[in-house]
Amino acid sequence: MALREQAIAAKRASVETAALSIPEKNRVLEAMGRALLVRQDEILEANALDVAAGREHLSPALIDRLTLTKARIEAMAQGFMDVAGLPDPIGQVISMEKRPNGLVIGQRRVPLGLVGVIYEARPNVTADVASLCVKTGNACLLKGGKEAFRSNLAIVKILQDAGKETGYPGDAVQLVMDTSRETTREMMGLTGILDVLIPRGGAGLIRAVVENASVPVIETGVGICHTYVDEGADLAMAQRIAVNAKVSRPGVCNAMETLLVHRAVASIFLPSCLEALKAKGVEIRGCAETQRIVPWVKPAAEEDWDTEYLDLILSVKVVNGMDEAVEHIRDHGTGHSEAIITENYTRAQNFLERVDAAAVYVNASTRFTDGFEFGYGAEIGISTQKLHARGPMGLLALTSTKYIIYGSGQVRE
Amino acid sequence: MALREQAIAAKRASVETAALSIPEKNRVLEAMGRALLVRQDEILEANALDVAAGREHLSPALIDRLTLTKARIEAMAQGFMDVAGLPDPIGQVISMEKRPNGLVIGQRRVPLGLVGVIYEARPNVTADVASLCVKTGNACLLKGGKEAFRSNLAIVKILQDAGKETGYPGDAVQLVMDTSRETTREMMGLTGILDVLIPRGGAGLIRAVVENASVPVIETGVGICHTYVDEGADLAMAQRIAVNAKVSRPGVCNAMETLLVHRAVASIFLPSCLEALKAKGVEIRGCAETQRIVPWVKPAAEEDWDTEYLDLILSVKVVNGMDEAVEHIRDHGTGHSEAIITENYTRAQNFLERVDAAAVYVNASTRFTDGFEFGYGAEIGISTQKLHARGPMGLLALTSTKYIIYGSGQVRE
Repeated sequence: MALREQAIAAKRASVETAALSIPEKNRVLEAMGRALLVRQDEILEANALDVAAGREHLSPALIDRLTLTKARIEAMAQGFMDVAGLPDPIGQVISMEKRPNGLVIGQRRVPLGLVGVIYEARPNVTADVASLCVKTGNACLLKGGKEAFRSNLAIVKILQDAGKETGYPGDAVQLVMDTSRETTREMMGLTGILDVLIPRGGAGLIRAVVENASVPVIETGVGICHTYVDEGADLAMAQRIAVNAKVSRPGVCNAMETLLVHRAVASIFLPSCLEALKAKGVEIRGCAETQRIVPWVKPAAEEDWDTEYLDLILSVKVVNGMDEAVEHIRDHGTGHSEAIITENYTRAQNFLERVDAAAVYVNASTRFTDGFEFGYGAEIGISTQKLHARGPMGLLALTSTKYIIYGSGQVRE
Repeated sequence: MALREQAIAAKRASVETAALSIPEKNRVLEAMGRALLVRQDEILEANALDVAAGREHLSPALIDRLTLTKARIEAMAQGFMDVAGLPDPIGQVISMEKRPNGLVIGQRRVPLGLVGVIYEARPNVTADVASLCVKTGNACLLKGGKEAFRSNLAIVKILQDAGKETGYPGDAVQLVMDTSRETTREMMGLTGILDVLIPRGGAGLIRAVVENASVPVIETGVGICHTYVDEGADLAMAQRIAVNAKVSRPGVCNAMETLLVHRAVASIFLPSCLEALKAKGVEIRGCAETQRIVPWVKPAAEEDWDTEYLDLILSVKVVNGMDEAVEHIRDHGTGHSEAIITENYTRAQNFLERVDAAAVYVNASTRFTDGFEFGYGAEIGISTQKLHARGPMGLLALTSTKYIIYGSGQVRE
């Protein structure tokens, strides 16, 4: 089926999925989770072919993300069970009021309709997105990385089969069959069919979608996250947090890329903290002042402040105070996650007030920006735009609202 | 100043406006409202020039929208006072929860940043949008129709002057000085500067913006609204509502364009209702069955069902029941406002459930879809998309949120 036909079929199916009851949707989710377990051999077989083909040109990190194991498939299946157990947002009336003219106006949560997601070669995303869309009554059009195509196809086939057995429309979960870039461009132009397009992946993909899409887009992910260590901070805590923010998972968007340190504590804090980071394999690139204090630090170039390393590399800058830290974050941040480490009440509140990002922290690691850590029980991505959803997106981000109005013959004027 | 420089200046000013306190913003609004009254002669003079120039090529309806009078300027000024009196959404913490690890995670309402609006030759929109943006701590970049340029310039100058006197940054309210289409195209591409672009105006403008913008867009306005008169409806009520929905202000997006009537009541309802509409000057274009019942009705062509007349023209179709009505609305509606007139409880609920539109009514005129009628005290437009805002947009639609997280040294894993 060509992309446009797939999309139209999915859109049509979204009318049916929107009308499903809460228990119906949960039965579908449970059936899908069970089917993934029962038919895991099909997935493992397909995945083995993907991995074999990928070995030639993919990095070990990418191979790791691509590879499925029995345990990972069990986790995928458990994801469906977990999502089934979450509260269902659809149908919820979030406000209802009687107007002076007697009209009763309510606002009811409804599905978005057809959700498009473009992502890299991570087959578990296929399952995650499908489960969240089933729960929220949306149909989905999934374009996974070509290196995972066989795995994705096996997963989607199993989900479709399990869906059909429980009365779920087969067209509601669609995998895009042509994994070329041309198809990405075509998806961006499905105006009136795709209700939202979420690009998950590298900065290049996200920029291309933001620049070229005519369908509504939710921008995700790019994170140049800062941690600012204030004058009078608890320096032991600051070091613990800095190391965690950089090292616990350097390849993700909520990892710290730049450490900002108040001049007054730099000469006490930096030697110990940078030594600890170095011991974990982190390459440090610092400003002149950082290099003066810790001579083995490499010099940071201007572009370091604007680089999302996604790697064991950290840029470090000594600043004259919170104003300079906030300005640096304004100039170089991507609006993802920013943290201050401080014991000062007023500066803590001011940092929360002045820094413009999806998540602003006092005395905690930026690594917590995540749908599960925020208690949403699920995550479709992390929005770095201000419209519709900002920060970790759970089920609510996949919903819209409509006004329902109960009248008794009212006319206007 | 070139557009891009204007936008950058406004964006910079938005950092300051975001930090203003509630009383500061209200003082600015009141000063702006007073200045519009005090300096109304400047506006009237500029407007007289616009109107004189427009007489040559604008329709009487457009001249009416363009023309300002003492009373209309007073209403504009009163708008600022009214907005000052509305509750301020900025800073509101809409949820705050303590996670098991002790992190306290809150979601706080913040301004969007820089709001762009493109609109037609209606100078009052300049004042409306500015007042809503001041209240919500946003800067704005306003592109009004070229026929109203002198009026808009006079208004914006007065607002800027009054703002400056009360400590409000002069760059925060900007009128685009070049009213050409080229500038519209340039606005659409201000990625990273414009946080949202709202096109208000004709279907052509809205389509062009949706298709070509790389900045986030909120689609507004196009309304092919239906009223479905069900079997067993209160026909007197149905007629009152139909006449109101069509005639009270035919040029706006929430006016009815198509009347759908259940076959069982068509022969009783249509003669009287269509006669009443005809008496108000409405041209009727009907399906074959409508023409059979009311012989003077003109035939409707296929394209009539997809036309937003914005005029005293109505298309009428006899349907076999609610299913056909809902399908017709799905195929031809624009997701704006749809109504059922019925006395049947189950069909009322089903219509509310099944029709996918920003506002769905039972027994009321679609003309109520409006920020003021919904009790928002203001309106920036009516969104017909599903992301971010749907239906009438008040102050909340001009806000985003950010997560604020109070930690005590938490690290992940």
